[in-house]
Formats: sequence, C-alpha cells, structure tokens
Amino acid sequence: MKAEIIAVGSELLTPDHIDTNSLYLTQRVCEAGGSVHFKTVVGDEIGEIIDALRAALDRSDLVLVSGGLGPTVDDRTRTAAARALGRPLRTDARVLGALRQKFADRGFRMNENNERQAEVIEGAEILDNPRGTAPGMWIEEKGHFLVLLPGPPRELQPMFEAAVLPKIRNLGGGERLACRSLHVTGIAESELDARIAPIYTAYPGVQATVLAGTHHIAVHLNRWIAAGEGEGALDELVSRIHAELGDAVFSTAGETMEEVVGRLLRESGQTLAVAESCTAGMLGARITRVAGSSTYFLGGVLCYSNESKQTLCAVPEEVLRRHGAVSAETAEALARGVRRALASSIGLSVTGIAGPGGGSEEKPVGLVHIGISDGERTASRQRILAGDRESVRERSTALALDLLRRFLMRAGEDG
Amino acid sequence: MKAEIIAVGSELLTPDHIDTNSLYLTQRVCEAGGSVHFKTVVGDEIGEIIDALRAALDRSDLVLVSGGLGPTVDDRTRTAAARALGRPLRTDARVLGALRQKFADRGFRMNENNERQAEVIEGAEILDNPRGTAPGMWIEEKGHFLVLLPGPPRELQPMFEAAVLPKIRNLGGGERLACRSLHVTGIAESELDARIAPIYTAYPGVQATVLAGTHHIAVHLNRWIAAGEGEGALDELVSRIHAELGDAVFSTAGETMEEVVGRLLRESGQTLAVAESCTAGMLGARITRVAGSSTYFLGGVLCYSNESKQTLCAVPEEVLRRHGAVSAETAEALARGVRRALASSIGLSVTGIAGPGGGSEEKPVGLVHIGISDGERTASRQRILAGDRESVRERSTALALDLLRRFLMRAGEDG
Repeated sequence: MKAEIIAVGSELLTPDHIDTNSLYLTQRVCEAGGSVHFKTVVGDEIGEIIDALRAALDRSDLVLVSGGLGPTVDDRTRTAAARALGRPLRTDARVLGALRQKFADRGFRMNENNERQAEVIEGAEILDNPRGTAPGMWIEEKGHFLVLLPGPPRELQPMFEAAVLPKIRNLGGGERLACRSLHVTGIAESELDARIAPIYTAYPGVQATVLAGTHHIAVHLNRWIAAGEGEGALDELVSRIHAELGDAVFSTAGETMEEVVGRLLRESGQTLAVAESCTAGMLGARITRVAGSSTYFLGGVLCYSNESKQTLCAVPEEVLRRHGAVSAETAEALARGVRRALASSIGLSVTGIAGPGGGSEEKPVGLVHIGISDGERTASRQRILAGDRESVRERSTALALDLLRRFLMRAGEDG
Repeated sequence: MKAEIIAVGSELLTPDHIDTNSLYLTQRVCEAGGSVHFKTVVGDEIGEIIDALRAALDRSDLVLVSGGLGPTVDDRTRTAAARALGRPLRTDARVLGALRQKFADRGFRMNENNERQAEVIEGAEILDNPRGTAPGMWIEEKGHFLVLLPGPPRELQPMFEAAVLPKIRNLGGGERLACRSLHVTGIAESELDARIAPIYTAYPGVQATVLAGTHHIAVHLNRWIAAGEGEGALDELVSRIHAELGDAVFSTAGETMEEVVGRLLRESGQTLAVAESCTAGMLGARITRVAGSSTYFLGGVLCYSNESKQTLCAVPEEVLRRHGAVSAETAEALARGVRRALASSIGLSVTGIAGPGGGSEEKPVGLVHIGISDGERTASRQRILAGDRESVRERSTALALDLLRRFLMRAGEDG
C-alpha cells in the first residue's frame, strides 16, 4: 500500500515551523503494512492545495492530509478536497448539532465561521474529533483513499488511532514491512557501500539504505513480507553483511555504541574513568546517556589546560614538553593517570586539535590521539579527522568509544 | 520569486528522520526576498524524483534540492535531474581531479563509486563543496532555476551562503524579510507568551513566534520591509519586549548561552572550572563549543561516584553522609573544591538525580542543585526539572550556565 502525506498550512512554510505530524503518521502507516513514498507541505493557497491533492491521489493508494480544517478563512482543505474530487460540500445537520453542543458545553456562543466546520464532502465518512471541533473525513475515490485530519497533534493522533488505523489495517491485506539494521563504525560510507552493495543487491525486494550519522553509520534493510511468509532471507542477508564487515559492526540489535560498551563493561565487571582534553566532556556525557551507567562509570577529568593534565592526571611535564599535549605519549599518560586518579579498572583518554585554530603543519587541525590502559596493557590510536570543530569533537568521541569496545572484546577473547 | 524545496532521501520517509534543511533554506530565501510555497520529500526511487523535479520546475521560479548527491547507488539526484531536464550527464575532468586530490590529502584511495560525484549535468554551473566531496550545481532552464545541494547541513549551508545566496539576491525584487530574535531563559513558554503578546500584537505586519528549544526559548519577530522602508519599528518592539522580560533575555544578537558566558568571563579576565555529577560532561562540552574557550576554561572533574567527589573535589565525607550527594551543601563543596583543584577564579558544579531510577519522596527524579564559588562568595540554586533522563541533564546544564551568567553580571555591577 503506497501512502503519502500532505501537510497544509502556510505556517509550515516559515523558518520557524516544521511538519512533525508526518513522523507519527509514517510510523503508524508502516506498522499497519503501508509505506510512505512522498511527503508534501503546501500553504493556504487553494489552487496549490488542489494541485497537491490531485497529484497525490493519482500516484498513491492512501493520501493522508493534516491541517486546514479549522474555522478561519485560511482553512481551505475542505473546499480544496471537494474541488479536487469534483464533489459538492454540504452542511451536515448532525455535525452542526454536535458542534453547537460542544460550544454550549463550554459556555461559548458559536459564531458563523465555526459553522464552516460542519461542511462535509459528499460521500465522506465523518471521523469524530473528541479533542477539538473540526471533524475529519475518510473518502474513497476510484479505489484510492483520501483522509482529512486536523492539524494539532493532540487532535490528529486520537482520531487516527480510533478511526483511521483500523481501516488501514484492513486495506493492508496482511503484508507487513520487516526491518533490520546494522550499526557500523570505523569505515567510510562509500567504502562500506562498495563492499556490501554486491551482497544486498542479490536479494530481490530488499530496500537497503546506508545512512551516515554523527555517531555511526546505519545500514537499514527493509522488505515487505506477505502473510504467512517468514523473514529468513532477511536474517541471512544480515549475517552475510555482518561477515563481510566483521567487527566494524557493533550492533545488529539497534544498540547505540554507549550501550554496547556499557554492556561489555558490566559483563566483565570492570569500571571506567575518562580523561578528556579536546572533547571536554562529550565522552562522559555519551557514556552516561545510558541509565544505570553509574555501576561501571566512576567519572573523569576534563583536562583542558596543560596544568590540569599534570595536576589531575599526573602527566609528567617532561612528556608534555617533549611530545606536546596532542601526542600518543600524552594520550597514554592521561589514560594511565586517570585510571589511577579514580581507581578504575580502565582509563580512556582523548587529546586532539578540534580547531579552527591551533593547528600546525606537523600537527594539523583534526589530529586526535586516543589512549587506553588497564594497568597491564596501555595502547593508543591516532587519526586525522575531517570536519569543523564540533564534528572533530563528535568523531573523536566516537573513536574513543570504539577503541574501548575493541579493547574490551579482545580482553574477552584473551580470557 | 516563488521558491520550492525538495528533500531527497528514503531515510526522510521513515519515522526517525525529518528534513531540517528546509528550515534553514526557507529562512535564507525569505531574507533574500523570495517565498517558499511548496516543500516535498521524496525517496530514492528515480521515477519519483524525476516527477517531483518536473512538477516543481513547472510551478516555481526557484527549485532547491537537497540530498542524493553522494557516492552510493542510492544517490540518484544527479541522474534524475539530468533526465528531468533532458540533458546529458558528463564526467567533469576538473571536478574529478579535485575529488582525487581531496582523497589523496586524507591518505585514502578513491574508489569507483566516488567518481560518480564528478558527473555534471550539461550547462550546469558547478558549486564547490569545501566541507565534503559532492559538488553542487546551479542550472537555468527556461527562466526557472534548479539548484542541487548536498544533504548534510554542514556541507549544504556553507555552499548555499557562498555560491547560491548571492545569485538569489540578484533574482529578488527589493522587498526583504527583516528578522530579530531574543533568546530567553528561566521562564516558562506559556508565561512568556502571555507577557509579551500584548506588546507584539500592537505592531501590525509583525509575525511573532515563540519557540521553545532544548537550551532556551527563542522569540522570533519577522516583518516584510519594502524597498526604502526602515526597520525602526521592529527595533522598538525588541526594546519593549526586552524591557518587559529583563535579564531573562540573555541575547538579542543571536548568541548562544555558552557564547554569552564566554564573553563575560573573557571581559572580566576570569577563569572557570566545573564539577559535574549527573551531567557527566555536558556542561564542559557546551562551554567548549566556543572556539577559543581555552582562554577562560581550564577544565574540570566528572565526579560520578561519591569517592570521586571526595578524592578529586575534596568534598568532606561528613557532608556527603549528612546531606547526601544531591544537596546544596555538596553542590557548594564541589564548586569550592573544583575551583581549588584547578586553580581557577570560579568553580561551577552540578549534582542531581537524572533518573529514571534513584529518586525518593524526599529527593525526586529531576531534583538538581547547582553550586558556584569565586572563593569569596559561594552560592547554590535548587530546582526540580521535568522530562526524561536526557532532558533533565540538558536542563541542568542550561541552569548551571544561567547561574554562572547571573553571577558574572552581578559581579560586574558590584565592581
């Protein structure tokens, strides 16, 4: 079932507003077995609303429209839909009576504008609005379905749940969308796609999307499953992609990186402390997004100045002078130092040049060193990261979490 | 000038993603004298992208397209635009050379997929992408303009500012949208609107929007200005709202809170250290978003465990035992302790219960204490914050920055 969503309202075409109803509607439509393939935002210009409705009815099985059902002259969705369908608009006595009652209940007198909300398109099924005044409509047109919904989410959502969702489920015919995802790190988006495209393209019907986020790359794999059909092919595809990418895949269960390292720390009974220079708290903030992280995260040090690296993490002045604050030697000394300062099992450190200033030919903006130590083993990793100040800091944080993950996995294998 | 915006990408048709580029683009187009009358989101299906492009070019003077210019087979905007226009796509030697150089600079070898990014539509003007690999394009077609832009905001925005905005300004008529904003903190959205609505409604033609974000509330005031007309009325309105709200307004110049406290610290020649319990790094990360913050931010301590509060910030065991880790006494001891530990002018601390667990009747989830000390004066503030774990942490961070701002402003008045 191909669905599309139209949001009506000139305020949604200003810099300050965005259509968020479509996120809710997309979620519900997918769960009911549909897929959304177009979203449109259109203003209060009646000709443009009519054009948008006609184009949508032409190409989609289900068209969900939000907004423009209110009492003001700007609210033109009813009129536009009537014209797009070539059907008359008539005042419905039952709706009008219910409207009058709602106003009376609140002690208001209904004005003429509000009577417009009792206008109904011929042949439409009326959808009650328990939380507001404008009723919705469900209209069938040559095997396509047009649904008019009020704009405010607190009116739209209960109406959709009660009156629209059951109808959509019936239309779906038992098909459902099965979804899998792999979360990947430490590999460029283009290289990743080049490696996995030969695998997923061999599975007909699978829609694959590679999405690079701030924290990791997500590979989404979706496939329509008919009633009675299993999801074995999709699971097999996930296994093959996982085998190709190896431990660059950190989760196939939708976990975030901080959840994965949290689980590994908890499982191995270890505790963590961090020393952060250029990230200045991002690493700690990421780790503690996980509720219950206090069982393995003890704390850390934000060593933004050289003095704080010496006084709080016992980095020898000699190391800072000879190798500089951004160096493998300092990163390792910070990891060892913060581990001792907080008496944790593992110390993890980040030091780098986030920019825009502070770079040199030898040590450019984007250079970062990550250090890790468990008292017996101490290691570090160096990278030059692209992007602006905030991106370098975000990526440094991701790199530190990934080094920790690999360190914990290797320790698990050794033991 | 009628503009419209198309966002390309199947991920924008899932429940998890929304097109935010269109907010930025709408703002800029309005400032340049255009108006946006359609927004469309379309997936990676090439036929649907072509249809969307054709419909848009038909009805709009300016069509801005974001996304789908990357290296993967999912990135189909280039091909779709070429077909919609009926023009060939050719590999551009200069673009290809520049791409190869970008990869070489980072020490990577370019694979075949990336070469697709050097394909250019015949007659297109190439728009450089200093922050990424995919170049943009500016194409004229029968008096209409089609602009292809990369999806990531950090690539799209600089490209738009440098290469697209000057062209759009040339196309525009003379009317322009004048915009002002006030950044406000420490006041509820509904109370704020109730206090300022009587003021802004007295200014005809002004569109006022009150927008509550994670970090603060923004009041946006926009008004269309004809050629030759001044912006005095808008400035007067800003002054009147500022007078009503007093020091709850922290900026009328678009500054973030971390920029404001950074400026106050720099101006007064003071340095800062932070002790973070429940926020575990968020405060340090916010403060150091500002380039050059190392001149006033020395570092801090993430004291997630009780032991770390004692060992790193010298909070007396007696204080923790009698008053608990989340108390005014501990917050003040942390502020004093971290100030001494890092030898800074000011110490700032946060301790609270972020949830979802850990609350009690006496100390509920959301309870937070902020402490501040400059060695002479020590103060603290208590609040119970609403929201989930992450919201409580974000709001605690905002509260700490605001306490610091008020502390620095008062100190300025005293001296």
